[in-house]
Amino acid sequence: MILVKIGGGGDINLPGIAEDLAAVSDPFIVVHGANAVRDAIAEKLGNPTQVVTSVSGYTSVLSDKAALDAILMGYAGVQNKRIVELLQQNGVNAVGLSGIDGRAIQGQRNKGIRVRKNGKTLIVRDFSGKPRSANKELFQLLLDGGYAPVLSIPIIDERHTAINSENDDIINVLQAAFHAEVVLQLIEAPGFLADKDDESTVVPEIRAGELEQREAQVEGRMKRKMLALRKLFEEGAEKVIMSDGRTEHPVRDALAGKGTVIQ
Amino acid sequence: MILVKIGGGGDINLPGIAEDLAAVSDPFIVVHGANAVRDAIAEKLGNPTQVVTSVSGYTSVLSDKAALDAILMGYAGVQNKRIVELLQQNGVNAVGLSGIDGRAIQGQRNKGIRVRKNGKTLIVRDFSGKPRSANKELFQLLLDGGYAPVLSIPIIDERHTAINSENDDIINVLQAAFHAEVVLQLIEAPGFLADKDDESTVVPEIRAGELEQREAQVEGRMKRKMLALRKLFEEGAEKVIMSDGRTEHPVRDALAGKGTVIQ
Repeated sequence: MILVKIGGGGDINLPGIAEDLAAVSDPFIVVHGANAVRDAIAEKLGNPTQVVTSVSGYTSVLSDKAALDAILMGYAGVQNKRIVELLQQNGVNAVGLSGIDGRAIQGQRNKGIRVRKNGKTLIVRDFSGKPRSANKELFQLLLDGGYAPVLSIPIIDERHTAINSENDDIINVLQAAFHAEVVLQLIEAPGFLADKDDESTVVPEIRAGELEQREAQVEGRMKRKMLALRKLFEEGAEKVIMSDGRTEHPVRDALAGKGTVIQ
Repeated sequence: MILVKIGGGGDINLPGIAEDLAAVSDPFIVVHGANAVRDAIAEKLGNPTQVVTSVSGYTSVLSDKAALDAILMGYAGVQNKRIVELLQQNGVNAVGLSGIDGRAIQGQRNKGIRVRKNGKTLIVRDFSGKPRSANKELFQLLLDGGYAPVLSIPIIDERHTAINSENDDIINVLQAAFHAEVVLQLIEAPGFLADKDDESTVVPEIRAGELEQREAQVEGRMKRKMLALRKLFEEGAEKVIMSDGRTEHPVRDALAGKGTVIQ
């Protein structure tokens, strides 16, 4: 089993990824982002994506009703179905799912994000939360039937409400359920960069034991990513390959060990 | 087996339908529209839905690339997932699918629509077509697993491209595959109206043999609907109930025989 996380940036080569995945013999589950598509839709609809920074320094998208609709349009609508279409055109019988379909990814809604605003600490409650478990039976039913699941947010909370969540955390619950041998993370960079502004500084190998130290050295979304990676190894991950999703053959390159191999 | 076709108008009572469906003991497949949601999105995105009338008098939505994206956003995105969410909240383990997922609904792309423009006949080719078959195995896999499939456009064509299609025609290929005992059509009217502008003129019963004659008496979308109904009985339908989707309990009312019963 391979878990394939596809970043949601506008430069990710989706046709190349679909072509590569058709040549992969192991069963796989795709989890994809769509932030570029979502942001463009939200902007045009007059509800631009709002990002908040929690008091503990993590940034997240504020997921009010309008933002969740933009997620449904951009992630579960356009991006999920365009990836399914590309896979189908390459002979892979893909089935797109959001985390609410068949309660594929069950989570717990956030009590609220603590944010600083005008010198005060406020609690902002939105439609977001943490995934707690995957419906392994549903994924296995599809895999056994010869289908390739392609998953996007939203996920479903304890009251069966659709909520936003982080793909890194979704990968973690899938890892806990499936014990994938490899997790691919296809991003808009050639791998983990020692200097985030210099693409020539790819770190080719990171030991899982180093992740906590790396987490302390970085900021913003990369900090969250390092934390998620650390948890991924706590869930029993053996190997994570963070590789460039913009190349001609992103999956082939990643499986050949290009980018950053974490184990 | 019950096939439930839910109209895409803005006045359809989706929470009431979800509540009613939770009380239905037969397995069912939902096929839903979303034209109100789609039109609102397309309008806001600056690509308002365009309708063309063919030389033979049928009207259809022109499905160019932008229109298909609006379908992905409105149908496969917002409406499909909001219906799944409502069903989940009522205890039904719904799985939303578009016709491209797992090649659920396979079709054939239109060669082009013959339209009259400025006194000339033009061929307009877009991303639209006719469904030819349903992937019964996929629906059965989900039904046997305890999941309720909730289907929306687009469907997938012979080259695995996503295309728009008519829900009435999709219902027909599902009927051919599943031989449903009842087909419910929940619309924004109390049933089939003898006078389309007068809601008090509901025709309580129509014999299937009368449909061809009814088809000749009506125009536009209702003409297409009558044609589709006639084909539905050719596919072996036993009973179709066309009923009001706007009431407090649309499914309960329909199963009690309110509206127009066609058999």
